[in-house]
Amino acid sequence: MEAAVRSCGNPCVVGFDPTPDSLPRSLRRKSRSPVSLADAYLAFARMVVRGTRGVVPGLKVQVACFERLGWRGVRAYERTLESARDAGLLVIGDVKRGDVPHTAAHYAAAHLARGGADAVTVHPFLGPDSLVPFLDALAGGARGVFVLVRTSNAESTAVQGSALDRGSLCSRVARLVHRLGSSYRGRNGWSAVGAVVGATHPSEVGPLRRRMPRTLFLVPGMGVQGGRARDILPAFDRSGFGALVVASRRVLDPCREARDPERSLAEASRAFAREVADALRLRGDGAGSRG
Amino acid sequence: MEAAVRSCGNPCVVGFDPTPDSLPRSLRRKSRSPVSLADAYLAFARMVVRGTRGVVPGLKVQVACFERLGWRGVRAYERTLESARDAGLLVIGDVKRGDVPHTAAHYAAAHLARGGADAVTVHPFLGPDSLVPFLDALAGGARGVFVLVRTSNAESTAVQGSALDRGSLCSRVARLVHRLGSSYRGRNGWSAVGAVVGATHPSEVGPLRRRMPRTLFLVPGMGVQGGRARDILPAFDRSGFGALVVASRRVLDPCREARDPERSLAEASRAFAREVADALRLRGDGAGSRG
Repeated sequence: MEAAVRSCGNPCVVGFDPTPDSLPRSLRRKSRSPVSLADAYLAFARMVVRGTRGVVPGLKVQVACFERLGWRGVRAYERTLESARDAGLLVIGDVKRGDVPHTAAHYAAAHLARGGADAVTVHPFLGPDSLVPFLDALAGGARGVFVLVRTSNAESTAVQGSALDRGSLCSRVARLVHRLGSSYRGRNGWSAVGAVVGATHPSEVGPLRRRMPRTLFLVPGMGVQGGRARDILPAFDRSGFGALVVASRRVLDPCREARDPERSLAEASRAFAREVADALRLRGDGAGSRG
Repeated sequence: MEAAVRSCGNPCVVGFDPTPDSLPRSLRRKSRSPVSLADAYLAFARMVVRGTRGVVPGLKVQVACFERLGWRGVRAYERTLESARDAGLLVIGDVKRGDVPHTAAHYAAAHLARGGADAVTVHPFLGPDSLVPFLDALAGGARGVFVLVRTSNAESTAVQGSALDRGSLCSRVARLVHRLGSSYRGRNGWSAVGAVVGATHPSEVGPLRRRMPRTLFLVPGMGVQGGRARDILPAFDRSGFGALVVASRRVLDPCREARDPERSLAEASRAFAREVADALRLRGDGAGSRG
């Protein structure tokens, strides 16, 4: 993952979560039934892949959008992953699965085995043994697992912010992620066991980073959900690595009415990448002037 | 749901979570590739439906087993649900989904809309707003949602048992389920918002029942996972309603080598139903003699 980030010069991931309304005009015509919607989503995915390859290191694909269309949607999801992988993008399957260990093993095989995603998102609610099958998949060639620690939605605090004797529930989950991840560190020192940490809780990013010093963060909630690039700087180390920042609507929305959707996607992802890269550079300068 | 339980005389649900090894002998031959495995799972599902209809009120289908086979598996899952519904079984989709609200809405549409399950299982980790799209589906004809409160796996306590100021995390989730469910009560007083409470934590069943007095429990972990019928009696009211008890391997395993798998399935589900019904009657007698 670090190589992909270094090569693109930014740690950005485009979130692909298609809906009938989000399709570019040329594809909206096709979007009547689940059959043709699935085809339209795949065609849109291929535009996104062509528009963002080489600009950002990765694509996060929301399986729920496809699952909504039934098995034809799941087939389009599989082909979307294939298309993104073939283009050299890191592919994160945003599947948020989590179950008892023997069932989690089915999910890990479904989503991380050959032909699946490079990394997936998972729920921590069932505890450490439910995560083990996903960690085992790392030995089999998968590149990462992102455990939900602090999500970006408005009412997440009702559960994740529950006050424990020491810290909150999400800080306990963070310790769990750090502990599990210590056996899965790459040569660069970062663990393949990552954490989802939403950009909408800026005051918590720094404390969570300190609890998980070698955990790669996947940061949704940038842009439309209200997170700003400077809010998430504590997630990064001095060299600008340590997190992947996700934006979806700010990249996808402008292409809806664009004459050349692929070009619009490329421009919007470049703008996103530039904003985050600039924020990281500013931080680098700041750190330099303090140092 | 109560009508189905009363009509069968037991609150049992057969858990269908097929693996290549669990198939009856006649279907194991087919089970080489994902293509034919998906066909074999569907054929097995139809045997289970024929063997259990009229004996137990419901079938819980584990989507992960199907998802592992890719889109062909998901197609077989959809057809399994259809087959069970057509036979008059209540169908619980064990999908354990959970995401931010706009994504949860996709999952609710995928799994609870017409053609989906009567009820599904969901994760509480993202908080109340993430559950709302599933609750909204109840107005659209879905029959139930079971929120994970206390799961049956060995290391679930590491998260669910986290000590809060008042009680544990799972008791907080229980309060949330009770509160959300109060707006979704049927004429019998029970809520369509249920809770997954594993049979492997017998000492917690009674306290969770008191926190969620009108919440239907879905109770996995009976039999092979170690839970016993008498351990879960506190989940039921005096009339023997209040929980659906799930068994999977004790019903499915005996048919692997049976000459007539369908008959074996019917016998094993009758034995399961009888054991639970007897335990409930004993309890009724006990309550009667005390009263």
